[in-house]
Amino acid sequence: MVKVGIIGAGRIGKVHIESICTGVRNAQIVTVADPYMTEETAAWIRSMGDIHVTKDYKEILGDADIDAVIICSSTDTHSIISVEAIEAGKHVFCEKPIDHDIDKINKVIEALKKTNVKYQVGFNRRFDHNFKTVKEAVVGGKIGTPHIIKVTSRDPEPPSPEYAKVSGGMFLDMTIHDFDMVRYLAGCDAVEIYVQAAVLVDEKIGEAGDVATAVITLKMENGAIAIIDNSRKAAYGYDQRVEVFGSGGMAAASNDSPSTVVISDSQGVTGEKPLYFFLERYMGSFREEMNQFIQAIEEDTDTPLGVMDGLKPVLMGLAAKKSMEEHRPVAL
Amino acid sequence: MVKVGIIGAGRIGKVHIESICTGVRNAQIVTVADPYMTEETAAWIRSMGDIHVTKDYKEILGDADIDAVIICSSTDTHSIISVEAIEAGKHVFCEKPIDHDIDKINKVIEALKKTNVKYQVGFNRRFDHNFKTVKEAVVGGKIGTPHIIKVTSRDPEPPSPEYAKVSGGMFLDMTIHDFDMVRYLAGCDAVEIYVQAAVLVDEKIGEAGDVATAVITLKMENGAIAIIDNSRKAAYGYDQRVEVFGSGGMAAASNDSPSTVVISDSQGVTGEKPLYFFLERYMGSFREEMNQFIQAIEEDTDTPLGVMDGLKPVLMGLAAKKSMEEHRPVAL
Amino acid sequence: MVKVGIIGAGRIGKVHIESICTGVRNAQIVTVADPYMTEETAAWIRSMGDIHVTKDYKEILGDADIDAVIICSSTDTHSIISVEAIEAGKHVFCEKPIDHDIDKINKVIEALKKTNVKYQVGFNRRFDHNFKTVKEAVVGGKIGTPHIIKVTSRDPEPPSPEYAKVSGGMFLDMTIHDFDMVRYLAGCDAVEIYVQAAVLVDEKIGEAGDVATAVITLKMENGAIAIIDNSRKAAYGYDQRVEVFGSGGMAAASNDSPSTVVISDSQGVTGEKPLYFFLERYMGSFREEMNQFIQAIEEDTDTPLGVMDGLKPVLMGLAAKKSMEEHRPVAL
Amino acid sequence: MVKVGIIGAGRIGKVHIESICTGVRNAQIVTVADPYMTEETAAWIRSMGDIHVTKDYKEILGDADIDAVIICSSTDTHSIISVEAIEAGKHVFCEKPIDHDIDKINKVIEALKKTNVKYQVGFNRRFDHNFKTVKEAVVGGKIGTPHIIKVTSRDPEPPSPEYAKVSGGMFLDMTIHDFDMVRYLAGCDAVEIYVQAAVLVDEKIGEAGDVATAVITLKMENGAIAIIDNSRKAAYGYDQRVEVFGSGGMAAASNDSPSTVVISDSQGVTGEKPLYFFLERYMGSFREEMNQFIQAIEEDTDTPLGVMDGLKPVLMGLAAKKSMEEHRPVAL
Repeated sequence: MVKVGIIGAGRIGKVHIESICTGVRNAQIVTVADPYMTEETAAWIRSMGDIHVTKDYKEILGDADIDAVIICSSTDTHSIISVEAIEAGKHVFCEKPIDHDIDKINKVIEALKKTNVKYQVGFNRRFDHNFKTVKEAVVGGKIGTPHIIKVTSRDPEPPSPEYAKVSGGMFLDMTIHDFDMVRYLAGCDAVEIYVQAAVLVDEKIGEAGDVATAVITLKMENGAIAIIDNSRKAAYGYDQRVEVFGSGGMAAASNDSPSTVVISDSQGVTGEKPLYFFLERYMGSFREEMNQFIQAIEEDTDTPLGVMDGLKPVLMGLAAKKSMEEHRPVAL
Repeated sequence: MVKVGIIGAGRIGKVHIESICTGVRNAQIVTVADPYMTEETAAWIRSMGDIHVTKDYKEILGDADIDAVIICSSTDTHSIISVEAIEAGKHVFCEKPIDHDIDKINKVIEALKKTNVKYQVGFNRRFDHNFKTVKEAVVGGKIGTPHIIKVTSRDPEPPSPEYAKVSGGMFLDMTIHDFDMVRYLAGCDAVEIYVQAAVLVDEKIGEAGDVATAVITLKMENGAIAIIDNSRKAAYGYDQRVEVFGSGGMAAASNDSPSTVVISDSQGVTGEKPLYFFLERYMGSFREEMNQFIQAIEEDTDTPLGVMDGLKPVLMGLAAKKSMEEHRPVAL
Repeated sequence: MVKVGIIGAGRIGKVHIESICTGVRNAQIVTVADPYMTEETAAWIRSMGDIHVTKDYKEILGDADIDAVIICSSTDTHSIISVEAIEAGKHVFCEKPIDHDIDKINKVIEALKKTNVKYQVGFNRRFDHNFKTVKEAVVGGKIGTPHIIKVTSRDPEPPSPEYAKVSGGMFLDMTIHDFDMVRYLAGCDAVEIYVQAAVLVDEKIGEAGDVATAVITLKMENGAIAIIDNSRKAAYGYDQRVEVFGSGGMAAASNDSPSTVVISDSQGVTGEKPLYFFLERYMGSFREEMNQFIQAIEEDTDTPLGVMDGLKPVLMGLAAKKSMEEHRPVAL
Repeated sequence: MVKVGIIGAGRIGKVHIESICTGVRNAQIVTVADPYMTEETAAWIRSMGDIHVTKDYKEILGDADIDAVIICSSTDTHSIISVEAIEAGKHVFCEKPIDHDIDKINKVIEALKKTNVKYQVGFNRRFDHNFKTVKEAVVGGKIGTPHIIKVTSRDPEPPSPEYAKVSGGMFLDMTIHDFDMVRYLAGCDAVEIYVQAAVLVDEKIGEAGDVATAVITLKMENGAIAIIDNSRKAAYGYDQRVEVFGSGGMAAASNDSPSTVVISDSQGVTGEKPLYFFLERYMGSFREEMNQFIQAIEEDTDTPLGVMDGLKPVLMGLAAKKSMEEHRPVAL
């Protein structure tokens, strides 16, 4: 039984608490820490099991009983707490991104060199049933050599312009998942990136210095070409599709929806919209990434997504920004 | 080049005229006869090619130049004209049904015994791209031995109650196509039939002595069980689906629609309704049945649908009526 | 917090244990009883939480701390334990069927008259996301008045011929779920039933006195006609579809599959088979039925499926047998 | 009745001959000219109707009886014959592309200025039932303001490397249709283009100086971003899809296939591959473009696709080449 401490009890922290309490075998939450812990959140956490609640995450790092730490705090603290946790000898699961600053990520890489704790980054979509099945088709040779990889990733609602200012921009906040998806499906890194982006969804996002619509072309190490298309707002909801086209065929994943029901009437033949947003769409993948993290600890194997997998999408996001600003393809 | 005369220039007659003029090689229409021929129809026919127009179908039967006759006149004249045409040595394509009266069909069977002219009945749906593909899957062993055959057949609009009175009833007018489809897909005859029917669509149809909703169960010679479900009115249009389920799997045909376009918006994910009615849905099959009739003449082979294929569905329709009236399964 | 005792720790008992431990709020399992409890099962149960394990279900009935009993024992004990539990003042969730013998079900009905404990029968499919959505469409008037209801229900593998002998036959063992589904979707009872059945899947099932393929026609109180088609073996797996066709349109639920991924290659365009069997397909509905049972206790409301909902499908199953034996429609 | 002469009786010439003879009302082919006319082709043409056959296209231009000329000769003669036909006062339907050389297209533009003959370019895909429906959805406001336009266009088989040498390259030969499609769906011109291309399908195509896989990003005048992805070889056949995503939703067209039949068996749930290639997929659109050309002549209205619509995609193709060679976005 792996003993776990969770740092950060916001939206994603709660997702991991619920996952571990209901769907992850062999893990037990000992303590949850959050400096802004409310009474309501504390009560909810206690209702999930015999869990200690605190505002000070150092309690977790100092608890010799705790094997692993799950970092769900605000992004700017991910790398610092990662280093502290590693130095305290804890296995670390860190939410994405590790940081927007490559130097800070490098400090985590350095810290890891001196130990053999496990480190996993929270790119949960790799564990989604649809995308995993596409990956298996690619690895299983069912579509031959990949030539074109397409990722469609559109949110149901844009963030507030205020959030846009502090998020690091769409590429580091939203597209970062798609950069990881492209690496996952291609099985290799990108060597060049070109961005065409626009402010079409909401002018205030533009005033905040960000974009909300983008088409990104990537050249991959293995010669394949990848395309990501992003929008901060799809009227029909969360659009999360991928397609890998290769010498032998194509594997494509369409959206999940709440039911398979189709209504035929005088207006047409109508199915349901996609599952609303990432909590609905990706709950299974959050559970599965945690299961694999715990399993890597128990079986002393590599985690499925190491620190370098946390670094690469950030590099891609920074290159994307540069491509947009300099209006040219940028090498990685 | 097979020289053809067409008797009857109503809706279905026009379909055959257009088919032959635009999509049937090796056939040429010499004469079209209709006692109610209007000037407008005559003008349209002449615009289709160098075609003689008359009100008297005997001109066709007496024209030594004409090889084959296509009978599209009113149902009550099908069998009489069939016999006359056969006796005149013409090959005959006769619209369905040959008649509602078995004795009259038997006269056609008798007439055919004395000659070797070709005779084909117009169950066009066998030549539809979807149903033909299901049949090929069955014959090709792709679903093993058939166990359950399902035919869904629903019209977009009910006929007028007046029509209901003279049509011979839904089973002989509409379901007759589905009876043929079941025979086609099963590759054998039915041995028993049970009907559950109702007047749900329009009370006036009930007052006219007919039904407008029915579920029909058939036991087939090969042990398979078939189900037909009929409605005279589907709000979303013409619903024409089949499914054959067997020991090795299932082959299912869904509806055709005007395009593959799907609109996703805040209301849902909406595709088009099925093609509106039989003229839209089955135009390709009308052309194909005619091509195969002409080919059977040219190559002196059996037609794909002989006079016995015209008789059987009428027997099934009459048994369906009896089952409904006597409220029990009826042997065939 | 509702305190629960579970009687029977076989396949379905384990489903409910897992549901309650991971997905049902406000319920806590106190004791699990099973006369054939193995060490392995006991260990698994203890790993799920602080749960007492016993071979004697009377411990549960006698425990004043326990509010509700979930009966997952063998079918022949359902009614007896139901009565005992009711008399002990426990709320009862009873797996389907209550019994095959109407007299025994009547004893449960009698016992319930003297108390106000809650009673729920385990027709879990009503709580499935697809079927619930169809029902909501019907109730919400989206398809007008129902005219035709179709239920396709096919298992991936037949039971052993030995099981066929003791199961009460396909209608009481398998179709019973579909009878409930027809009642649920129609919103009323059946008034007449007609069965056409066959032994096509496995001759040994026939030798054991059962059938494995059936088409069942039902006339409903509201005038709608329902069709169930069953097979004990679908080569492509668990086929669970419904369709309600009405005056205003149609609502149809197709199968769930493990992913939305489609592979296009030189062989065709291939999606996944349906989820394998009821544990995969209906896990969500098992959780939801339990949530609603617990909620009915907490809020002191009617359970969504009372004892009469347990009785009616058994009556339909017995009438189905009679229809098959007497080869005629049977009134209910 | 518009009298037509056809210049060029190769593959696409035959398509137009068949269209006009079977599906275009109010047009009559008087003469077909081809310098390489074989006996077989001549016989086939004569079997289609009372049509004069010649090797000399000047016969057509000199025939005062002929109203309109359809130019299906080799690409390098399109512009010259266009000018000659315009000067002879004939309406002109010219197959795409008018030329690869902008100067030659400009000569056609000049010639047209002096007359009022109709001129139409053969971008047939605008007349396809699927793409037309997407366009109507966009124009009808069903998806709001377009933000992202996606065109997937993949051939079933690559051309020979010999053809690649003389074709003008993939962008002018194949993508040119997609450039037109992007203009059609966006309702405006492109202002910038960026190409990422590769030789993945066949090295010999690379040796011939061409590419066979490409991803093309376009910035449109109205702010929308378009993506085209091309491959010369899709293992599953001709892949022709479009998607327009806007502020209010998305309209997407998937492929057409020979039937709607789906086979479910132990291997999965398999539908048919797309219609094989452009003759199968686009036959309806060839007929429709011709109908609209004839209608524009008869009603003296603008053709749906004028000479500028012929020029623009060539400019886009040349810019695409430049972007690939200079490895940067190129303004249009």
